[in-house]
Amino acid sequence: MFRPKHGGNLAWAAQIAGCSPGLILDFSASINPLGIPQSVIEAIQANLPAIQHYPDPSYQRLRQFLADWHQVPIEYVLVGNGASELITWAARELAKLAWVGLMVPAFRDYWRSLRAFDAEVIPINLQLSVASPAIKRRETDLPQMPSSRHSAGLLLNNPHNPTGVMWGREILLSLLQDFALVVVDESFMDFLPPAQDQSFIPWVTRYPNLVVIRSLTKFYSLPGLRLGYAIAHTEHLNQWQQWRDPWPVNVLAEAAAIAALGDQQFRQETWAWLGPAREALYRGIAMVPQLQPYQGSVNFLLVKSDQSILPWQEKLLKNYQILIRDCLSFPELGENFFRVAVRTPQENQKLLAAIAHISTDFN
Amino acid sequence: MFRPKHGGNLAWAAQIAGCSPGLILDFSASINPLGIPQSVIEAIQANLPAIQHYPDPSYQRLRQFLADWHQVPIEYVLVGNGASELITWAARELAKLAWVGLMVPAFRDYWRSLRAFDAEVIPINLQLSVASPAIKRRETDLPQMPSSRHSAGLLLNNPHNPTGVMWGREILLSLLQDFALVVVDESFMDFLPPAQDQSFIPWVTRYPNLVVIRSLTKFYSLPGLRLGYAIAHTEHLNQWQQWRDPWPVNVLAEAAAIAALGDQQFRQETWAWLGPAREALYRGIAMVPQLQPYQGSVNFLLVKSDQSILPWQEKLLKNYQILIRDCLSFPELGENFFRVAVRTPQENQKLLAAIAHISTDFN
Repeated sequence: MFRPKHGGNLAWAAQIAGCSPGLILDFSASINPLGIPQSVIEAIQANLPAIQHYPDPSYQRLRQFLADWHQVPIEYVLVGNGASELITWAARELAKLAWVGLMVPAFRDYWRSLRAFDAEVIPINLQLSVASPAIKRRETDLPQMPSSRHSAGLLLNNPHNPTGVMWGREILLSLLQDFALVVVDESFMDFLPPAQDQSFIPWVTRYPNLVVIRSLTKFYSLPGLRLGYAIAHTEHLNQWQQWRDPWPVNVLAEAAAIAALGDQQFRQETWAWLGPAREALYRGIAMVPQLQPYQGSVNFLLVKSDQSILPWQEKLLKNYQILIRDCLSFPELGENFFRVAVRTPQENQKLLAAIAHISTDFN
Repeated sequence: MFRPKHGGNLAWAAQIAGCSPGLILDFSASINPLGIPQSVIEAIQANLPAIQHYPDPSYQRLRQFLADWHQVPIEYVLVGNGASELITWAARELAKLAWVGLMVPAFRDYWRSLRAFDAEVIPINLQLSVASPAIKRRETDLPQMPSSRHSAGLLLNNPHNPTGVMWGREILLSLLQDFALVVVDESFMDFLPPAQDQSFIPWVTRYPNLVVIRSLTKFYSLPGLRLGYAIAHTEHLNQWQQWRDPWPVNVLAEAAAIAALGDQQFRQETWAWLGPAREALYRGIAMVPQLQPYQGSVNFLLVKSDQSILPWQEKLLKNYQILIRDCLSFPELGENFFRVAVRTPQENQKLLAAIAHISTDFN
């Protein structure tokens, strides 16, 4: 079986670990370890009979819910089959511009979608530093970018995967003034409580050149159900709507989304868990001689090693049934980096104990 | 609320009927009235916990199942978020050719997807005749088509919606010899028992210029879940895979598909119901003075009237909570046509009784 190019391929991991996929402790997919909210399971069960009808092609109910949630007019909302589907259409629009800036390392599917429409991609190298804080608030924190930005687009991930960097709103405003079109994938933004988040959604009505893409996958532990949405001026969304099929979102994902957004308790529990759990995991990894974790703003940490982490990955699988995410799909990083999700304190302790053991083997 | 452009918009119908959408007797969407197979409901319930994991990006298990089912190698199978998603990518490929023949009247979304990629579409007029049988077996049954077909593509629906015409395999083979690429949407083919179906899938391995698209939506009553698949040479499927996002099919649709294909009893019951039910519905409609039904090969009938059917549609909704499909989205047909699904004998009787009443009003 080939090594998977994306995270989350448990079948591959299970084969190496010699166990069933369900027994793998998966630190490779950055999914909320609190699991699927009970409210979501109940909503899906209640809506099972609805699968015998087509979805409402205007997705009126869900879009109104999202519009109220984000305080934007309903015409500014388009739902999609996961954020990935929407990024595909964003890429088609970006590809029309003279060039598209892509901050690297970048999620492999950004490359796939931009290439699918023959975009002229210019990689913009993020300057990584293990010492600096995860949140960047000064314009001088921005990497060097080519000039002639007025005819170009920018595809940005905020908070950024896999580094965990989050750009403050101040910085993004300057990008909006520079670029013809800025697409911000905020798939991880929900992990920040409202007082701390740096979402660009409040700026969408003012900036016709801004598109924000969100996902319910990671925060609500629903990657198997596929649900994302875009918030942008209608000129973008109407165009995308013509490009794609009329029923991209299945009715169970629709019901799940409405239940999830109504579940304030799940959000509070997630925020209460994440801060301390990430901090403890960061400190634990930092104590391992060969490893240097980066500060992260959300639910994963990027870790640098002074050696290839592939033997670590294999040993973690074979001896502990623990899966970490190698960074081979990010060519700028390569073998010496891995990414781990922040999981429950007990699970994080298991990971830390395992890498502490392995650390002595590889010393 | 605007009149919906596609079938199946129960919210619009319910507003006119003055009842809840669940009370509408829906003859507009051509869905199997036997409902969702119990085996499918059980598979979805058993797989609910799986939504917290990403789908396997190679969809190995489902693709192997479909490959075995159709007796083709697994590399010939690509799954999609409903047939509509796959038609979008087929349209992108077709659009590269000099022109694309589209038999009209055609499902509105064919137009949308071909236009989305700036295809040069040449409509090919189906010659409709109420007298002739639904299954066409002679080459002379084919409509006139432009020459220079060797540089062109053809997008075909077989059995054809909304006419109910089915092209025999013999005819399609000549099309394969003429056209550079033939895409056949067989979304309704499952309604024919294996001995009668005219599927082109057995020819796929021999013809690299053939793509067959199938759907589980209609036959297994799952339009809300979204599942379709394409069978074709890998050169097509690998290309489409690069164009679209990595997780188009949600895990519940994947589980449902495997359960559905394993449910031989549901198929037998459907085939046993359909023939006699369609025949009775056809005869009943033919008895109404203003209406002329066409012979249909699958689970719907196209009906021609000597007057606009829009007042019929409105009266059926207001007085009987019955929804029929007007043909306004097929410009070649227009106001004087409607389409009805074949439903259970009791439901068909309700429709027939209602149109018999209305018939005297409009006489």
